[in-house]
Amino acid sequence: MHTLSVDLGERSYPVYIGRDLLSDAALIGQHINGSQVVIVSNDTVAPIYLDKLRAAIGERDLVTEIILPDGEAHKSLATLNEIFDRIMADRHSRSTTLVALGGGVVGDITGFAAACYQRGVNFVQVPTTLLAQVDSSVGGKTAVNHPLGKNMIGAFYQPQAVFIDTNTLQTLPPREFAAGLAEVVKYGLICDEPFYRWLQEHIAKLLAREEAALAEAIERSCASKAAVVAADEREGGLRAILNLGHTFGHAIETAQGYGNWLHGEAVATGMLLAVEMSARRGSIDRVEVEAFRELLLKMQLPVAQPADMTPGQFLDLMGRDKKVIDGRMRLVLLSAIGQAAIVDDASESELTALLETFPRAS
Amino acid sequence: MHTLSVDLGERSYPVYIGRDLLSDAALIGQHINGSQVVIVSNDTVAPIYLDKLRAAIGERDLVTEIILPDGEAHKSLATLNEIFDRIMADRHSRSTTLVALGGGVVGDITGFAAACYQRGVNFVQVPTTLLAQVDSSVGGKTAVNHPLGKNMIGAFYQPQAVFIDTNTLQTLPPREFAAGLAEVVKYGLICDEPFYRWLQEHIAKLLAREEAALAEAIERSCASKAAVVAADEREGGLRAILNLGHTFGHAIETAQGYGNWLHGEAVATGMLLAVEMSARRGSIDRVEVEAFRELLLKMQLPVAQPADMTPGQFLDLMGRDKKVIDGRMRLVLLSAIGQAAIVDDASESELTALLETFPRAS
Repeated sequence: MHTLSVDLGERSYPVYIGRDLLSDAALIGQHINGSQVVIVSNDTVAPIYLDKLRAAIGERDLVTEIILPDGEAHKSLATLNEIFDRIMADRHSRSTTLVALGGGVVGDITGFAAACYQRGVNFVQVPTTLLAQVDSSVGGKTAVNHPLGKNMIGAFYQPQAVFIDTNTLQTLPPREFAAGLAEVVKYGLICDEPFYRWLQEHIAKLLAREEAALAEAIERSCASKAAVVAADEREGGLRAILNLGHTFGHAIETAQGYGNWLHGEAVATGMLLAVEMSARRGSIDRVEVEAFRELLLKMQLPVAQPADMTPGQFLDLMGRDKKVIDGRMRLVLLSAIGQAAIVDDASESELTALLETFPRAS
Repeated sequence: MHTLSVDLGERSYPVYIGRDLLSDAALIGQHINGSQVVIVSNDTVAPIYLDKLRAAIGERDLVTEIILPDGEAHKSLATLNEIFDRIMADRHSRSTTLVALGGGVVGDITGFAAACYQRGVNFVQVPTTLLAQVDSSVGGKTAVNHPLGKNMIGAFYQPQAVFIDTNTLQTLPPREFAAGLAEVVKYGLICDEPFYRWLQEHIAKLLAREEAALAEAIERSCASKAAVVAADEREGGLRAILNLGHTFGHAIETAQGYGNWLHGEAVATGMLLAVEMSARRGSIDRVEVEAFRELLLKMQLPVAQPADMTPGQFLDLMGRDKKVIDGRMRLVLLSAIGQAAIVDDASESELTALLETFPRAS
C-alpha cells in the first residue's frame, strides 16, 4: 500500500493506494468515527462492492445505503435533493459520515451533499473508476451539474480520507478505463514530462491492467494533483492548469448531453485541441501533436470533434465556462510537453480557425 | 456610522451600521469589485429600496435583479434552483458579486447561492429587517430549509461586507420588528447582563423606533455575535450558545409550517421555555422568569406554546435538530442572566413535564 498526503493545513488528508483496501476494516475504521454512516453508491458499483465495504465499515447504530442510478445525467440538484430526503428521513446527525463508493459522479455529488448537510459533515471517498481515483479523489472539488453548464453548483470540501482500491479497476468497462487514462496523461502533459514519456512506453501494460503499472500511474497522477492543489486549494491561479482540455471538453459534454460522451473522452479530444492550438502558436513541435494523437488512439480515446458541432456552438458554450473572468476566456495550453501555460488572448477568429480545420467524426 | 469588524482571519469583514448606508455609493463601491452584480431581494422590500441600492451600485456591465416572493416558505432548494437558473442564463462569471437586499430569508438563500455558484463567488449583505441585522448578518451561516427541518442544507460562508441601514427599520411591519427584538434580547440573556438591563429600561424607546436606541441595540447585538463567532466560526462549541430558545423554536416553526410563526416569535417562546427550565433547575431566580415574560409581552412577542402542539410532537421535532449529537440532545439554558450553559442531560420526562405545564395559546 502507498500513502500520499494531500497537504492543506488543518484540512490535510491521506490518500491510500493499494489492493483490497475496500475490505480493510482496520484502515477504514481509523477514518470513520461516530456511530452513523451513509453509503452512497450507484446501481452498477453497488452489486459488486457494497457488501464488502459494508462489512469493512462494521456495526454502527445507523447505516443508510443510497443507491443512485448510474450516470452523469443524475449528477443534478434533483438527485442531491433525494439524498437529503433520505438522510433527513433517517435522522442522521451532524456527526454522521458520508461515504462515496463509485466513480466521479458519486464522489462529486456525495461530497457536495456532505458539504451542505447541516453545513458540513464528515466525508470519505472510495473511488472505483480510474478517472475518480486520479482526478476527483484529490482536491476537494464537489459539485452537481446545471442544465446550462457542468459542475456549476458546488463547493470546495475536503474528505477525511480517500481509499483507492486498485482491484476495482479489474471490473471497469474498457470505455470507462480509457476515459480515466485521459486524465492520467493530462498530468504528464501539464507538469511531468518524464511521466508522459513513461506513459508512452508503458501504455501496453496499462491497457493490460497490470497491477504494478496501474499503481504507479495512479500514484504519480495523484502526487501531481496533490502538489498543485496544495499550492492553490481554491483555484486562484496555478490550479487552473488542471483544466487542460476541459474548456473544450465541457463544451462537447454540454452539447452532446451529459453521459453521451464520457468526461474523459471529451477531455481527451479537448486536450488534443489544446495541444494542436499550442503547436499552431509555435509553442510545441508538430511531431508532438502527432505522437499525442497516437497515444490517445492507443488508449482508445476519441481524437475528433463531434460531427454535429459548429465552431459557433463551441464558442457559445465555452463562453459559459467557469474559466471566463470578466468576459475574457482563459485557456490552458502547453509551452512544452510537461509544462502548462494559461492564456487569455485567444481570439474568436483563432478558435474558429482551429475548430474549422480540426478533424471531425464522420 | 459605526463599523464593527468580524474577526475571522483572511475571512474577516466589516459590518457598517448607520443611516442611509443603502444609498452610500462610495462605501458600497469599496466592497463590490468586478463588473457583474446579482441583486436578490423580495417583492416586499424591492419596491421600497431596490432603486436606491441599484443607484448606489452604479453602472456595471451586467446586473441581474432577482425578486423572490416574500416569506420563509420560499427558503427552499426549489427557490435556490431558480436563482441558479437566472444567474446561469445571464452567464455570470466567477467574479460576480451576489448582493442580498432583504431579511433573513433573502440573506440566507443568497449567501448559500453565493457559496455554491461556481463553488463560491463574492457576497454582500444589505439586511433590511431587525432580525437579519442582528442575527444572520454576522457569522456566515447560510442555508435553505428541508421539509423535515429548518436550515438543514447550507454552508458556512462569509460575506465581503454587511451594510446595516437603520432607516430601513422605519418601514418594518410591527410584527417583524418584534421578531427582531427577540434576537436582540437573546444577546443580553446569553452573554451581556448590562445590555439586558439596558433593554429593560429602554424598551419604550426601542418600540418607538428611536434612531439612537436602535443603533445602540444593533451594535451591541452584532458585537456580541461577532465575538462569539470569532471564537468559534464553525460551531464547534461556544457558538452553540447563540441557539438559546432555538431548539424549542425550530420545533414550533416546523410544526406550524414555516412562516405561520415568524422565526423571532418562535425563538421568543423557545427562550421563555429555556428560561423557565433554567429556573426549575434552580439556576436562575423565578422572579427573572416573570420579568422576562413581561419584557416579551412589552415587545409584543408570544409567551405561550401553540395550542395544538403536544409534548410528544415537540420531542419528536427537537430530536431532528442539528444540535443532536450521537443521539444526545444539547440544549442551551441559563446559569444566570447574561450567562448561557449548554446541557445534554435533559430527560424526556423533564421536557414532557415542562411542556405539559407551560402556558398554551387559547
